[in-house]
Amino acid sequence: MVDFKVLILGNGSAVPTRWHNPSSQLVFYGKNKFLVDCAEGTQMQMIRYKIGGASIDHIFISHLHGDHFFGLIGLISSNHLGGRQKELFIYAPEGLESLINHHLEITNTTLRFPLRFFTHEKNKAGILFEDKSLEVRLLPLKHSVPAWGFVFKEKKRNRRRIDRTFVDVQNPSIEDIQRLQQGEDFVGKDGKVLLNKDITHPPFPPRSYAYCSDTAYDESIVDFIKNVNLLYHESTFDNSMQDLAETVLHSTAEQAASIAKKANVDKLLLGHYSGRFKELHTLEDEARKVFPNSVLSREGEYYRIG
Amino acid sequence: MVDFKVLILGNGSAVPTRWHNPSSQLVFYGKNKFLVDCAEGTQMQMIRYKIGGASIDHIFISHLHGDHFFGLIGLISSNHLGGRQKELFIYAPEGLESLINHHLEITNTTLRFPLRFFTHEKNKAGILFEDKSLEVRLLPLKHSVPAWGFVFKEKKRNRRRIDRTFVDVQNPSIEDIQRLQQGEDFVGKDGKVLLNKDITHPPFPPRSYAYCSDTAYDESIVDFIKNVNLLYHESTFDNSMQDLAETVLHSTAEQAASIAKKANVDKLLLGHYSGRFKELHTLEDEARKVFPNSVLSREGEYYRIG
Repeated sequence: MVDFKVLILGNGSAVPTRWHNPSSQLVFYGKNKFLVDCAEGTQMQMIRYKIGGASIDHIFISHLHGDHFFGLIGLISSNHLGGRQKELFIYAPEGLESLINHHLEITNTTLRFPLRFFTHEKNKAGILFEDKSLEVRLLPLKHSVPAWGFVFKEKKRNRRRIDRTFVDVQNPSIEDIQRLQQGEDFVGKDGKVLLNKDITHPPFPPRSYAYCSDTAYDESIVDFIKNVNLLYHESTFDNSMQDLAETVLHSTAEQAASIAKKANVDKLLLGHYSGRFKELHTLEDEARKVFPNSVLSREGEYYRIG
Repeated sequence: MVDFKVLILGNGSAVPTRWHNPSSQLVFYGKNKFLVDCAEGTQMQMIRYKIGGASIDHIFISHLHGDHFFGLIGLISSNHLGGRQKELFIYAPEGLESLINHHLEITNTTLRFPLRFFTHEKNKAGILFEDKSLEVRLLPLKHSVPAWGFVFKEKKRNRRRIDRTFVDVQNPSIEDIQRLQQGEDFVGKDGKVLLNKDITHPPFPPRSYAYCSDTAYDESIVDFIKNVNLLYHESTFDNSMQDLAETVLHSTAEQAASIAKKANVDKLLLGHYSGRFKELHTLEDEARKVFPNSVLSREGEYYRIG
């Protein structure tokens, strides 16, 4: 099964602290790495966790608050200085392309590689990225500036999985395997028929991951993230700060858990912690009362998807 | 004596590495802190070394290469979110003010404090900052884009320093002290005259610090940094890369030492190390052959000035 996981690079909020970097994470799907948000210091976090900056081809920016994109120009610049030549795709709200170009202009830089910008369409949940096995969709969020989450979803797999014992015993040809994957029965050299259902397993169910930061409590996202295996939902505040959360259009951990429950996800990852908290267990406790499979995300840790 | 020292926050070059952050340092003079360059991650380095971001009022930017200023917008933003109200002064090459304003515009930010920009005048060694005891001057450098160093210089002190034993014995009045500081003799209650030269010491000599990064080898700076107590001069490369240094308008450690020797400085601090070096002792060795009091700067370390 293709490796599908997320590495948390930063799970703090507006201002970096001794304990947290602002938002950034890396979604791995097979050989692809997708960077989600890129706060100041993201390239340093990548160095710390041994991720080569040049290995990323797709960067998704959720919204234009500095704690989600101030590290982008540094990452682009380091790719340039490192000799990158292949295209880099950036999916971002309107305005970022012009700012990045402004940086390149005043630093007198002509990039050695093509930088391709795609601007998020407001209020649309369109497809940003798609290949034969994965798609990434926009998810409109509710925040003080236009903001989007991202849903990473494996495509539906039609190929049945062939039983290993059958392969060992019968040593089928490549053509046999292809027919079996498509649901056909197997005819042995002795003319004996083995039924497909007896020698194959159903395809793996498609796996999915949703990133929702920054956002106020907003049930309208539930339909878009229904049944995802892993949900990262911002939990900037605890219950004692619910009024503040409403005012500044952020969520409490309990609200994140409520969304996780309504969306019937497998697991909730908490993050985008306010710098106020020295200890985060209150957030986890409050979330678990509503949705037991809630965990505090930790920087430098990988979380399996599905 | 007023505390005068520099804290190295970053002494790497173009690209951050596991070992070094790009350029940034903090000059302390009494209660004032002056930030010199502000690469990505500078605010994180300040957190690491327990420097409050709000405590800085003056920021000097040497030139518009990203490894010297990409962290500025993050620092400004954190000051804003932290509730700063007092003015922040930024001294920078032409172009940076407009880029910072572009950031503020697309992040929808109206700063709560005044941001005052002063643009370096090309090819001039003018005074950037001045108060009763210190001045900071521009120093034009030779680089691929307009670049400046900074010279921090104490003003000449005229007040003589009164001997502590005399104070203990004679318990002079404030008026007596002021007269003694200005060179007058002292007349005791018994009418006996004590000569000024017998009960005072000469004023402390003014102390000075020069920051020179980024620059090719350029003897024309020698007159501006003559006799400084401490010189930070970039030493991006070692002798085996002298040709490259010339091409990209950087210096070798030996060239930095040669400038230190010609300028008759007390001590040379090496920095702006190329990311190529895993071990830096070659740079130190090569510098010391020309100027023995050369040392490798280290991040997180304070260096006394004078």
